[in-house]
Amino acid sequence: MGIPNAFYAQSGGVTAVINATACGLIETARKHKRSIGTVYAGRNGIIGALKEELIDTGKESAKAIAGLRNTPSGAFGSCRYKLHSFAENEREFRRLIDVFRAHNIGYFFYNGGGDSQDTAHKISQVGRTLDYPISCIGIPKTVDNDLPFTDTCPGFGSVAKYVAISTREAAMDVASMCESSTKVFILEVMGRHAGWIAAAAGLAQEKPGDPPHIIVLPEVPFDRRRFLNKVRDTVKKAGYCVIVASEGAQYLDGTFISQHVPRGESPGGSKDAFGHTQLGGVAPTLALMIQSKLGYKYHWAVADYLQRSARHIASATDVEQAYAVGRAAVEFALDGKNDVMPVIVRKKDKPYRWTIGEIPLARVANVERKMPKNYISADGFGITAKARRYLAPLIVGESPPPFRNGLPQYTILKNQLVPKKLKPFRL
Amino acid sequence: MGIPNAFYAQSGGVTAVINATACGLIETARKHKRSIGTVYAGRNGIIGALKEELIDTGKESAKAIAGLRNTPSGAFGSCRYKLHSFAENEREFRRLIDVFRAHNIGYFFYNGGGDSQDTAHKISQVGRTLDYPISCIGIPKTVDNDLPFTDTCPGFGSVAKYVAISTREAAMDVASMCESSTKVFILEVMGRHAGWIAAAAGLAQEKPGDPPHIIVLPEVPFDRRRFLNKVRDTVKKAGYCVIVASEGAQYLDGTFISQHVPRGESPGGSKDAFGHTQLGGVAPTLALMIQSKLGYKYHWAVADYLQRSARHIASATDVEQAYAVGRAAVEFALDGKNDVMPVIVRKKDKPYRWTIGEIPLARVANVERKMPKNYISADGFGITAKARRYLAPLIVGESPPPFRNGLPQYTILKNQLVPKKLKPFRL
Repeated sequence: MGIPNAFYAQSGGVTAVINATACGLIETARKHKRSIGTVYAGRNGIIGALKEELIDTGKESAKAIAGLRNTPSGAFGSCRYKLHSFAENEREFRRLIDVFRAHNIGYFFYNGGGDSQDTAHKISQVGRTLDYPISCIGIPKTVDNDLPFTDTCPGFGSVAKYVAISTREAAMDVASMCESSTKVFILEVMGRHAGWIAAAAGLAQEKPGDPPHIIVLPEVPFDRRRFLNKVRDTVKKAGYCVIVASEGAQYLDGTFISQHVPRGESPGGSKDAFGHTQLGGVAPTLALMIQSKLGYKYHWAVADYLQRSARHIASATDVEQAYAVGRAAVEFALDGKNDVMPVIVRKKDKPYRWTIGEIPLARVANVERKMPKNYISADGFGITAKARRYLAPLIVGESPPPFRNGLPQYTILKNQLVPKKLKPFRL
Repeated sequence: MGIPNAFYAQSGGVTAVINATACGLIETARKHKRSIGTVYAGRNGIIGALKEELIDTGKESAKAIAGLRNTPSGAFGSCRYKLHSFAENEREFRRLIDVFRAHNIGYFFYNGGGDSQDTAHKISQVGRTLDYPISCIGIPKTVDNDLPFTDTCPGFGSVAKYVAISTREAAMDVASMCESSTKVFILEVMGRHAGWIAAAAGLAQEKPGDPPHIIVLPEVPFDRRRFLNKVRDTVKKAGYCVIVASEGAQYLDGTFISQHVPRGESPGGSKDAFGHTQLGGVAPTLALMIQSKLGYKYHWAVADYLQRSARHIASATDVEQAYAVGRAAVEFALDGKNDVMPVIVRKKDKPYRWTIGEIPLARVANVERKMPKNYISADGFGITAKARRYLAPLIVGESPPPFRNGLPQYTILKNQLVPKKLKPFRL
């Protein structure tokens, strides 16, 4: 057998710091060459394992791997691909084990959100079932911050920082023009089921009355009358109104505000309450609502991928945590652990102190963490001091990438594939 | 009379660096207290002069004024307010002169785009007509980069940098996911008449074939068939397609792509070629077009105010130029100049060397500079090497603001008004 190799894959939506996790994992593995042979990365995530498209990270220089710490997106490619249960999907699981066996893979590292932790857990079980010894470690990642048990998910802190900064900056712009121009500004941010990202915009507020004046969360059923009243009152009082809206915001009956399926799926083309056909987007829908009922001049922005790829303004805390979970995953594997995920454990709010803990994958898989009720202000349009205490440390510190000619210099790997040993597999 | 005071106003859409100009102007004026008494700033631009709402910048500490160099938006408030000709509008011009006389204002500094330079020019003429001696200096500012004679307009370099960085980052995100998810990403940027901002996205490209794959410019009549062919060819070749579209992009007949009036004016609510009612926005319109004709999964973003307020990633070159034109304006006034504007004169492309020149306001007023034809690639979807040579130096250098608790610390002034001496004026 020789020294077992490792397989690492990035899964689901990428983030500004998932490559920092890859960096932590590969740099740590390289320090333990007697226990871990080569780290193979799946080309486009788990699809790479199924297709036997394994990237040999051993071909990358130490400098290139170090560069991953500063590089957004998924350096090896990621995918949206869910493996179903072994019973439903024995063929794919058997293929994975065949590929692992062919390449002497003894460690499986899966870097993703809830679905991915579920997959890692299943592979651990299948390994046992098929009598193939493999250590499966899940590694948390998601901008949505919706994994349970961990203080935060690497990727979230950087989006939170981007959204808080963008809100502060755009609000200053609106404030300086509101006398004779735009009165309402709406920023749409990610968060289909949980409002963590929109909530983070609240960090832009230093004292009561500061923008953002309204945060529209998916956790709070949208009430148009109350919303419009609050917009009008805010414009009357402050002269302008800054709104941050979660893409997943919805009415009491579960209808999305925009009837738009977030995250790039096809827009429904349905009609809103005003009979207008939708192109999709909470921000333009709210803008139109405000314009038609209150008549205010507005602007809106949709941050979309900009928010989760903005490595130029990533949170140093987030980068550090992303690196730490990658390193911990290797350490767990070396300790003989299996079917677990490293988590971030908060020791103290202020100054923020954290350490790495662990949790069995079975407990993480498919559990979604929503914002606690006591993080949402009484009127439903803001965050509480408790939420602020939780969120504040996650955006602390800057970690700028190297720049050349005014642009960030991000690392592009060679991504050289290992020769295939098996027959092709039909996905 | 005593030492004459100065009046300074910010006009039109604000930028990430217009306050750096205010900083240059006030710091320079403070060094010449024997020639310039106090700098009064108009509250909300020229409206402040008409309403006799003059901010006493002398009440601000040296530290606060220095902080303006790092602060986006308009610290004194800006406005969209156009003064018509003296003949049409004698009342307002006479009011301005009354206010200037009442507060012993001998210098008029107007910081804005083409309209504002026109206003500054008119005030200079009116001063002569009404026998009120006043030195009028226009100061360039506009993210649109559409003022003539100056190498660039302060404000543009920072938007250009933001757009180039955001395009690079989002493109990496799409590239890493395109195997199984989003294939097309569209970023909508500002630029109603001229495509300078969209063109700057081309700087994200390091070699041919790199994203952005398509730039949609207002200078090039939009041809849907050619556009869709290029999207399809790009996806086939690269696996994904990144598009940057100018809000002002239009068909040959002058119809906006989205039938949306950019910059926050009310959307038309008209129907597009597919019979869908528009909520406004070039990006969602193009996305829908692509989805309906090619079936690709897409994402889109609209940067809106985020792009022009993003002081956190401002171009150091832009900040320096913004400061320099503020300083030069005072130096011009001290030299007895009138009816002129400082401009940036390019001495060399690489390394970029520039100096300050001057131009009579009469020549600047209401002249719009579009992109030269030879800056646009043969197929109309990209920029040429010549454009790249022009644009590249403008985004060089970073100039991060101070951060505290993970957020930029921007300066908020006291903005204390000078006691009024005149009767109220109805706008």
